[in-house]
Amino acid sequence: MLTMQEIGQNAVKAERIMATARGGLKDAALNEVAAALRNNCEKIIKANKIDLKNGKAAGLTPSLLDRLSLDAGRIEAMADGVEKIAAMDDPVGRILSGSSRPNGLKIQKVSVPLGVIAVIYEARPNVSVDAAALCLKAGNAVILRGGKEAIHSNKALAAIMRAAVKSAGLPEDCVQLVEDTARESANELMKMNRYIDVLIPRGGAGLIKAAMENSTIPVIETGVGNCHVYVDSAADIDMAANIIFNAKTSRPSVCNACESILVHKDIAELALLAIHAALAEKSVEIRGDEMVCAILPGAVPAAESDWGTEYLDYIVSAKVVADIDEAIEHIAAYGTKHSECIITGDYAAAQKFLNSVDAAAVYVNASTRFTDGGEFGFGAEIGISTQKLHARGPLGLNNLTSEKYMVYGTGQIR
Amino acid sequence: MLTMQEIGQNAVKAERIMATARGGLKDAALNEVAAALRNNCEKIIKANKIDLKNGKAAGLTPSLLDRLSLDAGRIEAMADGVEKIAAMDDPVGRILSGSSRPNGLKIQKVSVPLGVIAVIYEARPNVSVDAAALCLKAGNAVILRGGKEAIHSNKALAAIMRAAVKSAGLPEDCVQLVEDTARESANELMKMNRYIDVLIPRGGAGLIKAAMENSTIPVIETGVGNCHVYVDSAADIDMAANIIFNAKTSRPSVCNACESILVHKDIAELALLAIHAALAEKSVEIRGDEMVCAILPGAVPAAESDWGTEYLDYIVSAKVVADIDEAIEHIAAYGTKHSECIITGDYAAAQKFLNSVDAAAVYVNASTRFTDGGEFGFGAEIGISTQKLHARGPLGLNNLTSEKYMVYGTGQIR
Repeated sequence: MLTMQEIGQNAVKAERIMATARGGLKDAALNEVAAALRNNCEKIIKANKIDLKNGKAAGLTPSLLDRLSLDAGRIEAMADGVEKIAAMDDPVGRILSGSSRPNGLKIQKVSVPLGVIAVIYEARPNVSVDAAALCLKAGNAVILRGGKEAIHSNKALAAIMRAAVKSAGLPEDCVQLVEDTARESANELMKMNRYIDVLIPRGGAGLIKAAMENSTIPVIETGVGNCHVYVDSAADIDMAANIIFNAKTSRPSVCNACESILVHKDIAELALLAIHAALAEKSVEIRGDEMVCAILPGAVPAAESDWGTEYLDYIVSAKVVADIDEAIEHIAAYGTKHSECIITGDYAAAQKFLNSVDAAAVYVNASTRFTDGGEFGFGAEIGISTQKLHARGPLGLNNLTSEKYMVYGTGQIR
Repeated sequence: MLTMQEIGQNAVKAERIMATARGGLKDAALNEVAAALRNNCEKIIKANKIDLKNGKAAGLTPSLLDRLSLDAGRIEAMADGVEKIAAMDDPVGRILSGSSRPNGLKIQKVSVPLGVIAVIYEARPNVSVDAAALCLKAGNAVILRGGKEAIHSNKALAAIMRAAVKSAGLPEDCVQLVEDTARESANELMKMNRYIDVLIPRGGAGLIKAAMENSTIPVIETGVGNCHVYVDSAADIDMAANIIFNAKTSRPSVCNACESILVHKDIAELALLAIHAALAEKSVEIRGDEMVCAILPGAVPAAESDWGTEYLDYIVSAKVVADIDEAIEHIAAYGTKHSECIITGDYAAAQKFLNSVDAAAVYVNASTRFTDGGEFGFGAEIGISTQKLHARGPLGLNNLTSEKYMVYGTGQIR
């Protein structure tokens, strides 16, 4: 097994070649990867079965086992995803801006790969393929560090991808897997500034917090979403109930799901009854403040801690606010700057909410569930950034690049 | 004296107002700041005299005392700089991109302030004014944490700026100074993720390294530049000598100065003699490899450590390379990804160098000294980024913003 330092060195060497690889070559490598995934379907499933067996023995929950599990359909979906990435425009070499200076210098800003990207994730083996394909397409070398639950699946996937990349004529070390799944290997990775340009944690709040606190490498923070839907006094109540039902229940386990409802006092009774009727279909538990509980006898009294909780479940908190300002204040105090929504027919309220709420995505009259690379038209995404640096919101291929100034002179001095 | 936590809370409160302040109001506040600096010139000089007296007693070097010192001319230059920033376009509210989705959603990406920015710097009090003006123009709240050497100057400057901002109708807490200059206050600042969005260290390599290692807040790494000029076999030798003389000696203490010269073996003798003749005018010490020392008897033999050293002085390392590939390899091994230059008349060599060298700015036939916000046409800069995330190269006003997706719906669900 390679040391972490050796993995870092190999990544840097591979990246030197990847950075200047033509787009056609990268696409050919990705198509090889897709074909190899299909051709090795049985091998992958076999490796995955070991993980599933170990997972059951270790008492993993059914939902975790589901995330871990691969079958022919999921492998086909991975291969298809890789082909879609291959078909996209090359994000490297875009001329982003340029100017001619008074002294005759010509300055061009050009997109270049980020370099070496480390991705730390948990039990979902499909992340190995998604992340590797996106990083490779953008000319990066990737170091994958998945959770121990998926180690056999990840080893199989990494070996298949490496062989495919190599057969296409690119360095196999542009995709490496850290096979040591002890906590120490993740901690060491987070300090390898010498070799790694960017760290992307993909997973739950605990993993992201650990990366933010321990990494000396620049981190792209992804994921945690305590998303609110505010029902304004000028809201269409049916629309509000419909959007909240969708935002809460279409997929409760994801970061762009609605976790908290704020309702203007003037519309509170009618709106809450309609929302409650919609959510009842999926038996959603409502944790309300005093006024909510007065209107909805079935609601559970909310504790202070509820306002800051990302449930990722069929639970939602709800509060009646005096006006839009209180809604905005509440979101500023408890939100995670992910996705926030106002339901209103009032122009001024919509504008105020859009401008005053600080989040990656702010919606008027649409579900928070749209915060997604595919839904935004970016194709595949590597996560949803909730930090202010580099990029915010769904991270597409273009966000896996950096920039470089190319300056063309004729002997200019300063 | 406020606690660090109180400073953080005040900044967040002020930022809530700054984020939506109209451009005209921010510009008025900046013009008030410029006027107040001029009107309080004597007060500033008086405070600065205390710092200078303490600095002399503490045995600061003449160059450090020079950086610390303020006079009427330097204060006028600061005021003028603030007015220039006021006159620039508002970097907030730019529509960066947008699309209409098949389901009718309209998605706009808009520039927004980064939020609360902490700037940690050393002995130069003018950084207090530069940094505050740039942050304020971009709608941010700034927390200034300067070195203890400049504390009296910084207190005077901060008080003047705060009063001016307040009289213009903006919250004075959008500019705050940490008056506690113990090391602990900087360390505490670096962990205040709850209040601070971005940390910008401005100063020497030690400060930047400490910020990278200790900060849990996203850092914009600025500054360290071990910049190379590679003289290709197809170079114009006079141009090479002229550019190297400029890049090395026009201001040796800055990060875009040339620190190392690489010369193709086929042109080594003629080129090195011409370069040596030029650099001799400023008595530049040349630390060379064996071949350089054989050609230039006055050169000092270089140690391995010389190749990675940013001298910031009238010293330069020099090495003869077999070809452009060795030059590119050497730069990859020892460079800091700041500014790198090739002197050549050969098209293929120029393209290869531009594409293969990984740095914020790569030059053909021009001095590395051009890596500068003003020279690139960005106006004032807050530093030169050498990291891959967010922005690379000179950081202008636009780089002090983040982005937000504003999504306009009509009831869409997913």
